[in-house]
Amino acid sequence: MLLRLKRQIAPAELSAVEATARSLGYECEYLGQKQELVQLHRRTDAEGPERPEFAARFADLAGVDAILDRGAVHDLWSARDGGQPTVVEAAGARFGGGDISLVAGPCAVEDEARLLEVASAVAARGATLLRGGAYKPRSSPYSFQGLGRAGLEMLRSVREAVGIGVVTEVLDPRDVEAVAEVADVVQVGARSMASYALLKELGKIDKPVLLKRGFGATVSEFLGAAEYVLSGGNGRIVLCERGVRGFDSITRNLLDVGAIAHLKAATHLPVIADPSHAAGRSDLVRALGRAGLVAGADGLMVEVHPAPEEAHSDAQQAISLRAFEALAQDARAIADLDGRRIVNLSDPAPPEHTHELSPR
Amino acid sequence: MLLRLKRQIAPAELSAVEATARSLGYECEYLGQKQELVQLHRRTDAEGPERPEFAARFADLAGVDAILDRGAVHDLWSARDGGQPTVVEAAGARFGGGDISLVAGPCAVEDEARLLEVASAVAARGATLLRGGAYKPRSSPYSFQGLGRAGLEMLRSVREAVGIGVVTEVLDPRDVEAVAEVADVVQVGARSMASYALLKELGKIDKPVLLKRGFGATVSEFLGAAEYVLSGGNGRIVLCERGVRGFDSITRNLLDVGAIAHLKAATHLPVIADPSHAAGRSDLVRALGRAGLVAGADGLMVEVHPAPEEAHSDAQQAISLRAFEALAQDARAIADLDGRRIVNLSDPAPPEHTHELSPR
Amino acid sequence: MLLRLKRQIAPAELSAVEATARSLGYECEYLGQKQELVQLHRRTDAEGPERPEFAARFADLAGVDAILDRGAVHDLWSARDGGQPTVVEAAGARFGGGDISLVAGPCAVEDEARLLEVASAVAARGATLLRGGAYKPRSSPYSFQGLGRAGLEMLRSVREAVGIGVVTEVLDPRDVEAVAEVADVVQVGARSMASYALLKELGKIDKPVLLKRGFGATVSEFLGAAEYVLSGGNGRIVLCERGVRGFDSITRNLLDVGAIAHLKAATHLPVIADPSHAAGRSDLVRALGRAGLVAGADGLMVEVHPAPEEAHSDAQQAISLRAFEALAQDARAIADLDGRRIVNLSDPAPPEHTHELSPR
Amino acid sequence: MLLRLKRQIAPAELSAVEATARSLGYECEYLGQKQELVQLHRRTDAEGPERPEFAARFADLAGVDAILDRGAVHDLWSARDGGQPTVVEAAGARFGGGDISLVAGPCAVEDEARLLEVASAVAARGATLLRGGAYKPRSSPYSFQGLGRAGLEMLRSVREAVGIGVVTEVLDPRDVEAVAEVADVVQVGARSMASYALLKELGKIDKPVLLKRGFGATVSEFLGAAEYVLSGGNGRIVLCERGVRGFDSITRNLLDVGAIAHLKAATHLPVIADPSHAAGRSDLVRALGRAGLVAGADGLMVEVHPAPEEAHSDAQQAISLRAFEALAQDARAIADLDGRRIVNLSDPAPPEHTHELSPR
Repeated sequence: MLLRLKRQIAPAELSAVEATARSLGYECEYLGQKQELVQLHRRTDAEGPERPEFAARFADLAGVDAILDRGAVHDLWSARDGGQPTVVEAAGARFGGGDISLVAGPCAVEDEARLLEVASAVAARGATLLRGGAYKPRSSPYSFQGLGRAGLEMLRSVREAVGIGVVTEVLDPRDVEAVAEVADVVQVGARSMASYALLKELGKIDKPVLLKRGFGATVSEFLGAAEYVLSGGNGRIVLCERGVRGFDSITRNLLDVGAIAHLKAATHLPVIADPSHAAGRSDLVRALGRAGLVAGADGLMVEVHPAPEEAHSDAQQAISLRAFEALAQDARAIADLDGRRIVNLSDPAPPEHTHELSPR
Repeated sequence: MLLRLKRQIAPAELSAVEATARSLGYECEYLGQKQELVQLHRRTDAEGPERPEFAARFADLAGVDAILDRGAVHDLWSARDGGQPTVVEAAGARFGGGDISLVAGPCAVEDEARLLEVASAVAARGATLLRGGAYKPRSSPYSFQGLGRAGLEMLRSVREAVGIGVVTEVLDPRDVEAVAEVADVVQVGARSMASYALLKELGKIDKPVLLKRGFGATVSEFLGAAEYVLSGGNGRIVLCERGVRGFDSITRNLLDVGAIAHLKAATHLPVIADPSHAAGRSDLVRALGRAGLVAGADGLMVEVHPAPEEAHSDAQQAISLRAFEALAQDARAIADLDGRRIVNLSDPAPPEHTHELSPR
Repeated sequence: MLLRLKRQIAPAELSAVEATARSLGYECEYLGQKQELVQLHRRTDAEGPERPEFAARFADLAGVDAILDRGAVHDLWSARDGGQPTVVEAAGARFGGGDISLVAGPCAVEDEARLLEVASAVAARGATLLRGGAYKPRSSPYSFQGLGRAGLEMLRSVREAVGIGVVTEVLDPRDVEAVAEVADVVQVGARSMASYALLKELGKIDKPVLLKRGFGATVSEFLGAAEYVLSGGNGRIVLCERGVRGFDSITRNLLDVGAIAHLKAATHLPVIADPSHAAGRSDLVRALGRAGLVAGADGLMVEVHPAPEEAHSDAQQAISLRAFEALAQDARAIADLDGRRIVNLSDPAPPEHTHELSPR
Repeated sequence: MLLRLKRQIAPAELSAVEATARSLGYECEYLGQKQELVQLHRRTDAEGPERPEFAARFADLAGVDAILDRGAVHDLWSARDGGQPTVVEAAGARFGGGDISLVAGPCAVEDEARLLEVASAVAARGATLLRGGAYKPRSSPYSFQGLGRAGLEMLRSVREAVGIGVVTEVLDPRDVEAVAEVADVVQVGARSMASYALLKELGKIDKPVLLKRGFGATVSEFLGAAEYVLSGGNGRIVLCERGVRGFDSITRNLLDVGAIAHLKAATHLPVIADPSHAAGRSDLVRALGRAGLVAGADGLMVEVHPAPEEAHSDAQQAISLRAFEALAQDARAIADLDGRRIVNLSDPAPPEHTHELSPR
């Protein structure tokens, strides 16, 4: 590890750096004319390997200006040279390693007959997972908050009737068990990305987690959130870029396609795009969905409603079944460009993919 | 209420608007040459008064382009003509109605002797509440996460020893009871602002809530979060502006002084500023604290550490005791400008203030 | 036109609205219970047609809260029902109407031999226009500012030697004539988007203008800038989205693919993307270029340098010739997806396209 | 200077670094185990002193990852230890060194009688400079563009009649001479901050320049713009923070009070705040003006209109004469807090201040 010290470091600050280094098994080599650079060499008799939290310990010290090189210490999300991409599987869906899956459905679960209709319709048009919220985070306490447990039960019935896996959001750490029991993929919404109590619970479950980026979160914070789940022992994470807040109001958010491409290069985790929340208007969902896929996304998550004008929430951004069909067709053509595959529910079971946490 | 319909509304969308109006007790008057404006008149035989959630029901409809005038329906946070500002009291502190209180202390509770030292020192220099996190939201799972229950116990001991109230953060809805038992004011951090499960729990407790604005949240979303607590029955909320995310890196965040001034005009709730998280660097904390106060803030929340270079978190932004003393002096001078008062721990008990939810 | 008045309008403010209406040939119809909506009806004896500036006259009045419907008044950039998209042609390039052209070259013109080499190389790999700055806007006065007139002369020689048109930037209204004499397309950079004196000069020339969106500009401001050129009489504008400022530093800017899709729907003008300035790092240029094209862009503008490590400016974001070749191949595949065409220098001359300003 | 090289630097990239070092008079010392740090030592026989542009030359090289320490090379705007703050004087106004001046007036110059009325009124209430635009940058070509030369003539007459200096904006480098002839301070608006051709012209004039920060510009870019004027030979610059673009719409912009405090510490130049453009609504101008002053601003620039509802532009943000009087009173009280002075037109002529460029 290479540290840069503050220009005018106080003696107490310098001692703190050296004491931290000693306690973690490092020796200090001072570089530069002003000795303001510190190369930390790991002592051969140091206990255990270098760990990501070591860097954080130095970053927190007042005398340290920057950590220039974290050396051999990698976070669990980090792509390693020669490493394989992680493929996350859930019900019939597969994300990563060249496999693209489409997730579609209404914003919120509203009634069972309607949900059944949507589920069959999107499954027939290329979706491999059904989305639908039983718990809805809404800016106003007076907005529709979702049906809760009753919504979960509807998802369960429809899941069995149609044979499609379901993705649904959990807001409260106390609901993780109940949601994970029904869901094939448990979703963390953008507003909950930094709900670390929730993420810690999700590190313990045996279901994949679809983690949405907060609309005000940096990519580094997004990956820190993923690390909470990974370090808890759950290696099956799908990252989801859904747009960040911008200064213009023509779209609800700005789909950060650069972040998608960056994440595909920097991590081994699958990444999908949510063009519906990014656009916030149905007429742009197709363009943003296409853009996410060509930037490298391993899937899309789209709000689809058979009668968008009757939806209880997010009506403006839901697309019709016909529009979803067009987008699915686009997805197939885009997958072909790069020799990737769109996963279909009718595909035969895939060869086993590994999704265990690789040892560091 | 006055709605503007979409330019090219589908018949099904129009029916949905009319059905919603009927079910909520309204009659529709169509205005404009193209009949694109709908004035909703409340039927005299309608059940119950107009409620905030009615507007949300229309806002969710696909046929509705905008709600131009919500009429007589107000949220609980809303300032009303001739209404009194809410004064929130906790231990010896008072926020609002001309009373300014200073909250100071370390970022995190680290050890008891040190906490006792800080508490006495800030109390002696003008603070009326001690801040200090037992539960810390950190971007990395490998960063110091706070001492948890042990930290709460330290806060309790120090609170009793020094005679100063404490503000501490809760992250997990399951910890609300334990935190509220110790804390005089329960804090919701910026990353938890949209954790609605947590906010609902806080609506039920009998302790004031210090609600921080999310760094990516609009003022409207901030007030929506406050409304979750208010509508749950807890009227004692202190809003806290702590900076929003910007594109420049000279400061950690942008202190939104315009939001402070706006909130003071638009709501009856007290508003404070957190210059420490806004600046992210100790040399600018004083300037931002002053700016928050002259913009109308009813208090400040500041990170103070007797030896900033040894802090486990947020070392760069903690100010020294000497710097806090200077800021407290500034606060007194600024309070004088407008005939406001800085509350001191040694003040005699104030005349009773009301902080019940006013009936709408 | 439909205006919404301020809630508590002063008599003087109301008179000002009525006087403005009269002077522009309108009669006022007041709507709503509080008469806060004003429908403006054009008098049959009014002089001349409604014009875009009429709305602006009302928008500037203190009594007017919003202009809800501008009626028949359209800006020149506006797409009209049944209207044809504008195709902008320059040298062998064509933008719009299904034609996609690639613009490539170095950030700055540095020396003639090198420029000749790049020009031949990019032309051979699919570029139809050569980019290269003779005048460079740099944040520091001590950075390389471009070769100026000497750079223009190099562009002229290389243009003739290679047979490829050139795009080059103008910064100063006093240079418009000199730049327009050499350039096939005159570029307005992001920092100059709101340099209205410059835009007015460009409204008078007989060369296409490539107008980049300011990194802090809304789409509405971007279109306002285009309107300056259009209303000056020059209808040949190519809009260029090059990323807006965001809060994260993983990329230099955020490519606003939603804006590309929106502009393609809302205007009749061609739109291209500049993935180089958006990414600010060469490894993401391909992904962003692809994303821009599938979102609807009629072309790409890319920084290419045969030896990126030796470039005097923007070295991090220039891609190699090999990378450009890959991107051009992607572009052809993406064009095929939608039945669009990549224009090649070797294409036979196209059937005449019209690019006159259509009458409103 | 200390450079950090790219992790995997190509041989050609390394050669380019070494060649650049040699050509600028440096020797290279490689540090670190991987030799990835380069300490540049200035050769004693090197020609001339180190200059700011040297760092930029390295920053532009592809092999250089970061410049960690620019050593002794300072930009002209930079505050030096023990250096005096620059005081900029114009007509009766003085900015900096403890002197605070208020600039007030209408957005645009509209008619002479009205301007005379405003000028006298604001002068009587504490303004030492009159603001008013003869050339107005407007987002739409159909909005009022200012009266141009006729507006300048009005400013000249009113200036003489009232005895107050004037600040007015220049948009076009061709107008610099004409504007500088009339104006006591020449203003560069936010949209022109990066109009380097204009800034270069302003480096040559003998009038102070009021430089507004672009609403999408970093502080570093803002200072780069100032450096254009300073390096051209004009040392009389007043920096003006007027708000940056944010994601919320409650205010037009976010007043960056942290930037004001940072600039006061990092530069020797005076800094003022423009609360009118930051707020975009008259009711918040006072709060933002106060906030700017306590954060360290050496003055305010405020839009004042005797009849805001009749203004042709920016009506929403202009404050009345009564409101300006209150703000001026606040300014006096805030100046007192820190032992600073509000400059009045009736003050006796100050002792001579120096405003020459100090030698580096």
